[in-house]
Amino acid sequence: MDLILNTALAERYAAPGETEAEAARARGFYRELAALSPADPAFSASGWVHCQEAACELELILRKAAEIRRDAQVFVLVGVGGSNQAARAMIEALKAPGGPEIVYAGNTLSAHYLQDVLRRIEGKSVYLNVIAKNFETLEPGSHFRVLRQAMAARYTKAELAARIVVTGTRGSRLEKIARENGYTFLSFPERVGGRYSAFSPVCLLPIAAAGLDAGAYLQGGEEMEKKLAAGSGGDAARYAAVRSALGRRGFSVEMLAAFEPRLFWAQSWWKQLFGESEGKGKKGLLPACMSNTEDLHSMGQYMQDGLRCMMETFLMVDDAGARLEVRPDPDFGDGFDYLDGMDFANINRAAEKATVQAHDAGGVPCVQLRLPRIDERAFGQLFYFFMVSCALSGRLLGVDPFDQEGVEEYKRSMFAALGKPGRNPR
Amino acid sequence: MDLILNTALAERYAAPGETEAEAARARGFYRELAALSPADPAFSASGWVHCQEAACELELILRKAAEIRRDAQVFVLVGVGGSNQAARAMIEALKAPGGPEIVYAGNTLSAHYLQDVLRRIEGKSVYLNVIAKNFETLEPGSHFRVLRQAMAARYTKAELAARIVVTGTRGSRLEKIARENGYTFLSFPERVGGRYSAFSPVCLLPIAAAGLDAGAYLQGGEEMEKKLAAGSGGDAARYAAVRSALGRRGFSVEMLAAFEPRLFWAQSWWKQLFGESEGKGKKGLLPACMSNTEDLHSMGQYMQDGLRCMMETFLMVDDAGARLEVRPDPDFGDGFDYLDGMDFANINRAAEKATVQAHDAGGVPCVQLRLPRIDERAFGQLFYFFMVSCALSGRLLGVDPFDQEGVEEYKRSMFAALGKPGRNPR
Repeated sequence: MDLILNTALAERYAAPGETEAEAARARGFYRELAALSPADPAFSASGWVHCQEAACELELILRKAAEIRRDAQVFVLVGVGGSNQAARAMIEALKAPGGPEIVYAGNTLSAHYLQDVLRRIEGKSVYLNVIAKNFETLEPGSHFRVLRQAMAARYTKAELAARIVVTGTRGSRLEKIARENGYTFLSFPERVGGRYSAFSPVCLLPIAAAGLDAGAYLQGGEEMEKKLAAGSGGDAARYAAVRSALGRRGFSVEMLAAFEPRLFWAQSWWKQLFGESEGKGKKGLLPACMSNTEDLHSMGQYMQDGLRCMMETFLMVDDAGARLEVRPDPDFGDGFDYLDGMDFANINRAAEKATVQAHDAGGVPCVQLRLPRIDERAFGQLFYFFMVSCALSGRLLGVDPFDQEGVEEYKRSMFAALGKPGRNPR
Repeated sequence: MDLILNTALAERYAAPGETEAEAARARGFYRELAALSPADPAFSASGWVHCQEAACELELILRKAAEIRRDAQVFVLVGVGGSNQAARAMIEALKAPGGPEIVYAGNTLSAHYLQDVLRRIEGKSVYLNVIAKNFETLEPGSHFRVLRQAMAARYTKAELAARIVVTGTRGSRLEKIARENGYTFLSFPERVGGRYSAFSPVCLLPIAAAGLDAGAYLQGGEEMEKKLAAGSGGDAARYAAVRSALGRRGFSVEMLAAFEPRLFWAQSWWKQLFGESEGKGKKGLLPACMSNTEDLHSMGQYMQDGLRCMMETFLMVDDAGARLEVRPDPDFGDGFDYLDGMDFANINRAAEKATVQAHDAGGVPCVQLRLPRIDERAFGQLFYFFMVSCALSGRLLGVDPFDQEGVEEYKRSMFAALGKPGRNPR
């Protein structure tokens, strides 16, 4: 079974025919995207549109991942933004107990955090994957150095070569470093930007090292690719159209709500994808997330009755993959006997359904996106769906969904303060 | 040294004299709050205004916490919303290695999450603190039952009595349960709502059980209490005034940005406090958070150049409590030699400063709130500052900052679906 989109409740907030008109525009953009020729400037960022093109070097990835699972106690993923979000989203949602501990680094400048990473690798068998498109970013660059030095104090040069995997663009400084030091090198595909890299080695090596099924994941992606192609963007064009119509009506925030806490990092991936693709030219819906039911006890009041500035997209799951029944405790008198014999899976579904009803009644345009379950194949479908939606949504908004000029702004004054030599951004 | 507020950059977005006029109104509300008499309806929710009044039963708390630290391998905190946020914020920021593992429960309906909690307590010496003001909330109620049953399978009734601490209102069902089963009972003060309970036993027992210094924390709270009292609300009135003025100018979101990842849960506490206090009557700034520098690679683009709908408050730290120097690696050629000899503490500060500059230049009203360091005393100052700010901000907005009618909305249809008997909310 596939991802199901239901935009009926939200479409009531648009003018009659408005969503369909936007969807027709989006389908036009989809056809352009699918037919891009090398002469088009956008071609240079469209390598993700065909999952198979992005998913290069699979055999090498699976071989290295098997070695990591066999020999590592800790696997350190050094990356930030588009270079770690997709893998972390899947690993945090799907990793079973066992296998190497996964540690994230290269994603902060906090000394406190990095010290903790150093503590966690102490005395353990460590493998490391550093991922960076151009290797100018401060966090992965500086953390790679600190962690490499810590590993070099314990391993020989040959051992280090086996334990470090480098993912970067062909011809980049990272490839040169890999060649000089004998590290395994994987491609960060030239035509794929960080936040659209979910089907490339950037994501595939870490998830395979964490024991996830990369094959099933790619299958899910390709299924969605075919499905959207068959409908000229299909549901992705529809979702983009609803966002566009609501943005025009003055909604300024999109809240992505999930009812499984382990989807937190998947929501974080979505936030980066849409925020960085659309937040430009003083436009775009600000993406935010709720992890329910916990956040119903935090942002629930605001969603129900605060400023009417947000639409809400519910990321729902039919079968969340776990069951646990409330066993009776008749003599205790805790006041919860009405739950006797019910399963938390069903209680959570009741809360989810009630929340859609309540927020809809409170004047929040609600979109429902339903996954059959949380597994690799579903992630493949979901990621591909959102990436196409985001590209189309950016075009509807009139911005380039593949650039990110704004993130260079703070770097200019930071690099100046740190005395970075040479040509700095812009 | 104390918390320092700087609103200069943000005040430029208000009309001349507007912020000062709002601050004067806020100081008036402060004087009302500080002088509330039992005849005033708001008196019933103002027990937090005097830290000492909220911080009852301290001797019992410290004795029980010492027992937990001596005998527990796992300490389970069962609570949601205002019943766990303050403690979790402090524990996740300040807990040193050693002592019992802290596990959070009662904050989700996910069966997957609860199964994981059951796995984590398996075969370990467990203590549990269940916290609920009225004990009608589904998550803590159902989790308390499941965890109590799991513990009852391993412990005698007398052992269970020693291992369970119950925090609830005097006269509530929870107190009755505690009396009947011999559990230790702590007061959830009658005149303190969940999100204003940071100085009550709700927060004090868990932080003490995690090895934090409750005395230094209360000292920080009292210092801020005195300081704000001396200025009729002082900086809290100023911060509330800026929020109010910007809200009137059409800003719909407040982004709280921190540069230490371990402040994530403190930001989450802030989000609940403001979201639930202000999000009513179709009004209020939507609170959202950024955990930098990671989220600069996610929401940085949007903050720089997306829709100009948000103000930003920077939660800065002078001394983040850790240092780690970048050691040279001259022969490697990683391109980061310009960082040689610098400390991450300083690099992170440079990133923070550059971000304020860039977002200010990008048209985001920026507020700066500076903590001397991250410790118990600073948390006491910070929590008290934000609670007063929030109460005054709600009054400026014209809403009741102490109620939360909106959160009952989804519960009505959920309770109906689950067949809960008796009088349901409203």
